[in-house]
Amino acid sequence: MDLNEKTIAKEKIFNGRIIDLYVEDVELPNGKVSKREIIKHPGAVAVIAVTNENKIVMVRQYRKALEKAIVEIPAGKLEPGEEPLTTAKRELEEETGYECEEMKLLLSFYTSPGFADELVYLYVASGLTKKTEQQDLDEDEFVEIVEVSLEEAQKMIETQEIHDAKTAYAVLYLAMNAMKE
Amino acid sequence: MDLNEKTIAKEKIFNGRIIDLYVEDVELPNGKVSKREIIKHPGAVAVIAVTNENKIVMVRQYRKALEKAIVEIPAGKLEPGEEPLTTAKRELEEETGYECEEMKLLLSFYTSPGFADELVYLYVASGLTKKTEQQDLDEDEFVEIVEVSLEEAQKMIETQEIHDAKTAYAVLYLAMNAMKE
Repeated sequence: MDLNEKTIAKEKIFNGRIIDLYVEDVELPNGKVSKREIIKHPGAVAVIAVTNENKIVMVRQYRKALEKAIVEIPAGKLEPGEEPLTTAKRELEEETGYECEEMKLLLSFYTSPGFADELVYLYVASGLTKKTEQQDLDEDEFVEIVEVSLEEAQKMIETQEIHDAKTAYAVLYLAMNAMKE
Repeated sequence: MDLNEKTIAKEKIFNGRIIDLYVEDVELPNGKVSKREIIKHPGAVAVIAVTNENKIVMVRQYRKALEKAIVEIPAGKLEPGEEPLTTAKRELEEETGYECEEMKLLLSFYTSPGFADELVYLYVASGLTKKTEQQDLDEDEFVEIVEVSLEEAQKMIETQEIHDAKTAYAVLYLAMNAMKE
């Protein structure tokens, strides 16, 4: 079955600092016409960083969209032309103060394919050393560091203290691989 | 540490069929001012449905934001005033033709807290019977059904044929609980 939706018309509604918004008229497989609301995002990285004491480094950060602070693994959007690996190292260091010996791409994933093209590259970082006790945050960024064991992180999924899909996915992926070993 | 960001001004940029877009001026914890681009979404459900033959029911669906079709668990946005459980039953039936005896809320998660408030309620459905060989899709919806075992689904995460965070999270959550039993 041909599932493709052909763009007939495309209107740019908003050109933002982080996201752009388009409304597209599309032709459906049955020939009918519909509208799609689409967010264009530059893509992002997320890092599951494991300390030498086997703790996962997370950050508690205010999310204006949710009007509250939540716990997530360190993450950040790609800058234009930047390699995801570079972004991953930068975000880890800025948000947590940790440098790492090894930073390895695990996988990538779409976060909200129904309305956004955001693709997140998930890295695992090990061989961590605190470069500085100070975080080196962007001037509009305020985060608290939270370090938990893999077991604690899994409990935080059950209690929904981890309420962010990328963080939960990363923790379960790590736990699943730990069980295979 | 007080992480809160206080709204100083709020502009509605777009009022869509599925999403709304706001730009907010916020006061940061250090007193400085920044801008936030925020997508308001009604929320959604996703259903991990397991057949009597222990297959997970997935759908392949064109996603205009990605300009391609991807494999996901059945999902759909909440209608105004609708209970998530009702949405979950409706979406499962419409997209796959399956009715279920049991539909249980597992957990919820935010998909893109950096720019969107979308919250997805994840249900697990069992006791499935095909109500009809025909799907009963919305007139702008075209999906193919894909049924795979839990093991196959885990392989599809490794090969990235499952490239959608909610689907991967749901599969790993199910796999983790299967291993505990």
